[in-house]
Amino acid sequence: MIRIAVLGAGRIGRIHAGNAATIPNAKLVVVADPVEAAANALAERLGCEASTDCMAVLQRSDVDAVVIGTPTDTHISFMLEAVARGKAVLCEKPIDLDMEKSLAAAREVERLGGRVMLAFNRRFDPTSQAFRKAIDAGDVGEVRQVVISSRDPGMPPRDYVEHSGGIFRDMVIHDLDMARWLLGEEPVEVMAMASRLVDTSLSELGDFDTVMVQLRTASGKQCHINCCREAVYGYDQRMEVSGSKGMLLQENLRPSTIRRWTKDATDVREPLLNFFLERYVEAYKGELQAFVDALNNNTALPTSVEDGLKALRLAECALESATSGKAVKV
Amino acid sequence: MIRIAVLGAGRIGRIHAGNAATIPNAKLVVVADPVEAAANALAERLGCEASTDCMAVLQRSDVDAVVIGTPTDTHISFMLEAVARGKAVLCEKPIDLDMEKSLAAAREVERLGGRVMLAFNRRFDPTSQAFRKAIDAGDVGEVRQVVISSRDPGMPPRDYVEHSGGIFRDMVIHDLDMARWLLGEEPVEVMAMASRLVDTSLSELGDFDTVMVQLRTASGKQCHINCCREAVYGYDQRMEVSGSKGMLLQENLRPSTIRRWTKDATDVREPLLNFFLERYVEAYKGELQAFVDALNNNTALPTSVEDGLKALRLAECALESATSGKAVKV
Amino acid sequence: MIRIAVLGAGRIGRIHAGNAATIPNAKLVVVADPVEAAANALAERLGCEASTDCMAVLQRSDVDAVVIGTPTDTHISFMLEAVARGKAVLCEKPIDLDMEKSLAAAREVERLGGRVMLAFNRRFDPTSQAFRKAIDAGDVGEVRQVVISSRDPGMPPRDYVEHSGGIFRDMVIHDLDMARWLLGEEPVEVMAMASRLVDTSLSELGDFDTVMVQLRTASGKQCHINCCREAVYGYDQRMEVSGSKGMLLQENLRPSTIRRWTKDATDVREPLLNFFLERYVEAYKGELQAFVDALNNNTALPTSVEDGLKALRLAECALESATSGKAVKV
Amino acid sequence: MIRIAVLGAGRIGRIHAGNAATIPNAKLVVVADPVEAAANALAERLGCEASTDCMAVLQRSDVDAVVIGTPTDTHISFMLEAVARGKAVLCEKPIDLDMEKSLAAAREVERLGGRVMLAFNRRFDPTSQAFRKAIDAGDVGEVRQVVISSRDPGMPPRDYVEHSGGIFRDMVIHDLDMARWLLGEEPVEVMAMASRLVDTSLSELGDFDTVMVQLRTASGKQCHINCCREAVYGYDQRMEVSGSKGMLLQENLRPSTIRRWTKDATDVREPLLNFFLERYVEAYKGELQAFVDALNNNTALPTSVEDGLKALRLAECALESATSGKAVKV
Repeated sequence: MIRIAVLGAGRIGRIHAGNAATIPNAKLVVVADPVEAAANALAERLGCEASTDCMAVLQRSDVDAVVIGTPTDTHISFMLEAVARGKAVLCEKPIDLDMEKSLAAAREVERLGGRVMLAFNRRFDPTSQAFRKAIDAGDVGEVRQVVISSRDPGMPPRDYVEHSGGIFRDMVIHDLDMARWLLGEEPVEVMAMASRLVDTSLSELGDFDTVMVQLRTASGKQCHINCCREAVYGYDQRMEVSGSKGMLLQENLRPSTIRRWTKDATDVREPLLNFFLERYVEAYKGELQAFVDALNNNTALPTSVEDGLKALRLAECALESATSGKAVKV
Repeated sequence: MIRIAVLGAGRIGRIHAGNAATIPNAKLVVVADPVEAAANALAERLGCEASTDCMAVLQRSDVDAVVIGTPTDTHISFMLEAVARGKAVLCEKPIDLDMEKSLAAAREVERLGGRVMLAFNRRFDPTSQAFRKAIDAGDVGEVRQVVISSRDPGMPPRDYVEHSGGIFRDMVIHDLDMARWLLGEEPVEVMAMASRLVDTSLSELGDFDTVMVQLRTASGKQCHINCCREAVYGYDQRMEVSGSKGMLLQENLRPSTIRRWTKDATDVREPLLNFFLERYVEAYKGELQAFVDALNNNTALPTSVEDGLKALRLAECALESATSGKAVKV
Repeated sequence: MIRIAVLGAGRIGRIHAGNAATIPNAKLVVVADPVEAAANALAERLGCEASTDCMAVLQRSDVDAVVIGTPTDTHISFMLEAVARGKAVLCEKPIDLDMEKSLAAAREVERLGGRVMLAFNRRFDPTSQAFRKAIDAGDVGEVRQVVISSRDPGMPPRDYVEHSGGIFRDMVIHDLDMARWLLGEEPVEVMAMASRLVDTSLSELGDFDTVMVQLRTASGKQCHINCCREAVYGYDQRMEVSGSKGMLLQENLRPSTIRRWTKDATDVREPLLNFFLERYVEAYKGELQAFVDALNNNTALPTSVEDGLKALRLAECALESATSGKAVKV
Repeated sequence: MIRIAVLGAGRIGRIHAGNAATIPNAKLVVVADPVEAAANALAERLGCEASTDCMAVLQRSDVDAVVIGTPTDTHISFMLEAVARGKAVLCEKPIDLDMEKSLAAAREVERLGGRVMLAFNRRFDPTSQAFRKAIDAGDVGEVRQVVISSRDPGMPPRDYVEHSGGIFRDMVIHDLDMARWLLGEEPVEVMAMASRLVDTSLSELGDFDTVMVQLRTASGKQCHINCCREAVYGYDQRMEVSGSKGMLLQENLRPSTIRRWTKDATDVREPLLNFFLERYVEAYKGELQAFVDALNNNTALPTSVEDGLKALRLAECALESATSGKAVKV
């Protein structure tokens, strides 16, 4: 039984806390958030303690593991304190928007022998897991080409965009992690193109809304990623892996299998699940379960700080390529 | 908060108890089963009390509602005792295999003013609910024809079949309830055909394995049901409603949206969910939630003993029609 | 090379003539229609002779085979004359709306040793052919249940309905032939229900617009047919065969595989092919080709006058069942 | 009525000749091929004249238009001779593998005021046409991203590869033309990656078997193309266009809509159409029809020599990018 503290009672914290309260072999001990009302409301709903002092929570002896779901700029300090106190950590991405700080944190975690898992939730989506298992089982043979389509339903608020680190670090990074995971090899070359087709005023921020990235590994495997901040038809999350023995496709998910036939259109399916909190419900659950299982079984955590650094590095290479018009070596 | 006792720690009892322990606004107080080990194991897993005396549990003052998941021949006695003690009841189908006893029990429940819901779980499946909502919203206009395909993955054990009451009372009854619910009118005429195409030795039991039923309501709406005890391709649960403005279809559910492309076959989807416990996970959850919500909000229970009687009556009409070769008036 | 005369330059005659002019191993010699303009226009377009005298055409020595696409009440006289002159015949359905006359004609064809094929075009649809081939190859094992959905896009004109012989003889008859063909055994029992849900004034004609039929063969195989004169979502033609080893499904056809994703609906496919002339283009072509091939190879014609009689008999049994409320023995 | 001569009685010549013999408003006059048996067999089957002298055919006064389906290195000489003789030309791609020669030929055609259409058959595929129409109608709004998947079922023979001009000029060029056509703007930047994952011995030829290309137009629209010489699951031809108002997808085509359900796999569709001759049957027909219609109506030919040059230029840019690791400006 892993005793869990969740830091952050915002959108993502509430998801982790809800999962911690219900998955097997885990027990939610406390949720902490400087906003007292938020911490209390969440604690009451889930039947655990509340705290407004995250640092204090990290010192509790009845806590084995910490889920960090606070704002990005607090990730490193909580992570290092938790590690110093011997707690296992599941930390939301990114470690930090700054590569140098991230690297330093990673070195410190390593020095302390800390157990830290980066929250690449999509890897734990049931379909992604099935992809990985099928690839490992040799169902597609040698992987040759990966194609990832990843489009958000609409532009986030300007304020969010300004503090996001840009489309590559904020949005494409998830797909870059997925690319690494599906390719089974590290990309060594990145080529990217970036446009402003949704909101031209993003030029003020040096940011983009529509990008294409292609990656190549040392052995020649290839991956294409297309992203757009706005898809009016909904949150579009598809992927495909082809290889010497076949191909795997993942369609978008919908709330049910109902199809409607009317005078105007036939065989109409339900709308896509609205956005990541709905689309990846099972992924968040699977992620926390994998964290808890690894701790209970004393096996390796399925993702690491290193994975976070590598995805961030690829995002920076993609940005550089889009700006310079050159393939960038990783 | 509804305080719940679950009678029966077998396959179906475990499902209801698990749901009672996790859905909002409900609290699982106790599980009871004459098999002590079963009751204890379930209680321990879910963190509630255990009992081996179902009747005693019905007398507890800290129980508001009872879920009856015991063998069929015990349903009536527990139901009447619970009603007499002022408990609300969610009772598994059927009330009883005997029509006379069922009628008598229904009259007694009515006399006592009891609140009893029959567990027609499929009505609470998310797709069925979406069907009903779309029909109520007028999306298909006036309903004209309903088509239900309902095939089990394989013959149940001989012992089960012998005590099942026959394919019409045991299997088709679910589809007959669905037919009533989707048609929105009572069927007045039943025509049925029944064959032994899977296991000819069923003639020894006077039972069948492959049937077709068609129903007609007073206004002329029609429903077709096809059932088979064995579909080698899996548990097949489809339905379709067509009307003056359109049609709704429900495909089978699968664990994921992955599709595989190989040398041998392309676009291959995942296998169907194995059987009703997997296929109707959400339906069981929704059923108990609807029961609890109705009790909390003091609104009408969504299904009644009457619904159980009517479905049983249709099953008997179908059997009579298959035997006599005549349309049977309900 | 089979030299063909086509009688009738109306809707169906034009299709047969067009196919006769283009399929291999056939030569369109002449088209005949009492309406001179129609005959001439068709002949000019296809580069063959025109005639206004159908009987005269049947006496030409440069004609090997005749396609009869004239009004139903002329079928028998042209068929018998053609047979008497030694011509092979492809005759549109039905032979006649009257069972007695049809039987007499069949006996006369048999007496004369005539080669007559009834135009059950749907059997020659590529998907139907693939169904038949798969069944013959044992892909579904022993056939158990056949389900046929057959709905027209809209009510035909009143005048057409009045002379149609009623929904069973005019519309359901196609599905009854398909049922016989897919079951691979003769139905021995028919149960039918019929309603007026589209146009209640059909009661004046003793006709119906919405029907369900179920059939049983001697060995217990079953078939369900649902028909409606109006499906606002389009011409609906689906079928399914299930058996001891699996199931075959046939979806509706569409002009292309394009799917559209918009704000309002995602994955929207193209509208169904409008009606039988569009949906069964390939079927008509395949039908004539099968006729010509059988003549060229001197093999048995794929359908017979007998097939026409049997389908008509089933239609009459269905009508009787719907009226009497009894299963009718064939 | 356009009177047509077809040069070449090989694989592609036979397709064009067959279409010329059957489409409306055209008449196949003669087929020419230095291989006498090939020319004769084709002419006999289609009921036209045969010739072994292509140049002589170009001088016939009873020929209005010429389809050039001879080997690539003869394209320019026949094209220029035909133009000089006042014949309209439909010429197979590419004009020539050499850019300089192609440019010179284009200038000569222009000087002579010749009417030459390059055979980009895929543009005339019904689904491509529907894409173009939907884009023109504004259904996807402003185009943002195009994704094209184009994989052959297997490596062509070594001999073919050696004379193909390489994967970019031989295979990707079709997709580059499609990209230009769907984007509706000229690409200004090309980034490509190329690997040898099917047959490493292609390094001897400096050729590749697996490539990814991304294109950008001046306004920032993007296109991704993935190609592979071998897809064991079949000839894979998909495309997708997304824009400000929605998305269009094109699935692969199959011979029928049948789906099979067995113990081993459910909902299995038919295999993909084998290769381009089967997949693009309708495209070839539409292409010739568009050529004939433009000549009959005296409207602009739908594709030009210029289109051929531009696609070839993009192929060369892609090759350069793959080799140099830089974005190449067109």
